[in-house]
Amino acid sequence: MKVELWCLGKNTLKYLDSGISDYEKRLKHYVPFSLEVFSIPSAKKNEIPENIKRVEAEIILKKLQPTDHLVLLDELGKHYSSTQFSQEIQQYFNHVNGRLIFLIGGAFGFSDDVYNRANAKISFSKMTMNHLLFRLVFLEQFYRAMTILKGEPYHH
Amino acid sequence: MKVELWCLGKNTLKYLDSGISDYEKRLKHYVPFSLEVFSIPSAKKNEIPENIKRVEAEIILKKLQPTDHLVLLDELGKHYSSTQFSQEIQQYFNHVNGRLIFLIGGAFGFSDDVYNRANAKISFSKMTMNHLLFRLVFLEQFYRAMTILKGEPYHH
Repeated sequence: MKVELWCLGKNTLKYLDSGISDYEKRLKHYVPFSLEVFSIPSAKKNEIPENIKRVEAEIILKKLQPTDHLVLLDELGKHYSSTQFSQEIQQYFNHVNGRLIFLIGGAFGFSDDVYNRANAKISFSKMTMNHLLFRLVFLEQFYRAMTILKGEPYHH
Repeated sequence: MKVELWCLGKNTLKYLDSGISDYEKRLKHYVPFSLEVFSIPSAKKNEIPENIKRVEAEIILKKLQPTDHLVLLDELGKHYSSTQFSQEIQQYFNHVNGRLIFLIGGAFGFSDDVYNRANAKISFSKMTMNHLLFRLVFLEQFYRAMTILKGEPYHH
């Protein structure tokens, strides 16, 4: 199974780059994985969030294939402990046929079209986090999940 | 009021340093703030977690003053949205007389002595996160809380 993390907009917090590529490399020891960063057109000053989310939705939806299992990383999603999250991933590995795609939204979240296409929603926190920093947080957690599934000593 | 973030053990993920000092600087525009990193003796190989936590507790407890308001950042703590977290911080600003100290544990969490001294426990996530990465995550969230309290446009 191919796992992909989809993100919107280039990373502008340069200090995150080494951490992101470190966890990306580590993950590839466990599963075919890629991080895909999609360019989004710069929004007009004072553009309303609905319009920004609509443009982002078009970019995402046209890249999806019908067999893709789309998991939104969304404040309103289901909360898991690290162990429960690893079990959920194991379920995906057992049952999903297409690509497993985790999607991190832009600064304003997702449009209804994206919510309607999603197969699942997972929340890492009730709190809103910078969406660029969240890329690193997700990768660390997904790596942690892999080590839990393998019984390796990273997770206490 | 003085706010401090207390952490155990030097940061070994060097790529986090610029992010941490960036948010540290930004925070100081809003509130007297400092990040304190306490050295901990290297644990013996296969040392049991209880012993590691006991050593860490001694380091912490002897640095605390009786008027300090100690908030543990702990998986078992209370969950807040970013807005609720900012309101909680406002409550601290209104009512706490001593220092407001947020404490991030080591890789194994806290000993009972530290739990017993704590004034509050806050959880950012049901998930376990690398405690070094969590320093940056906390700073970003605390900065976000400050901008929410000031009505500034960082938080959507």
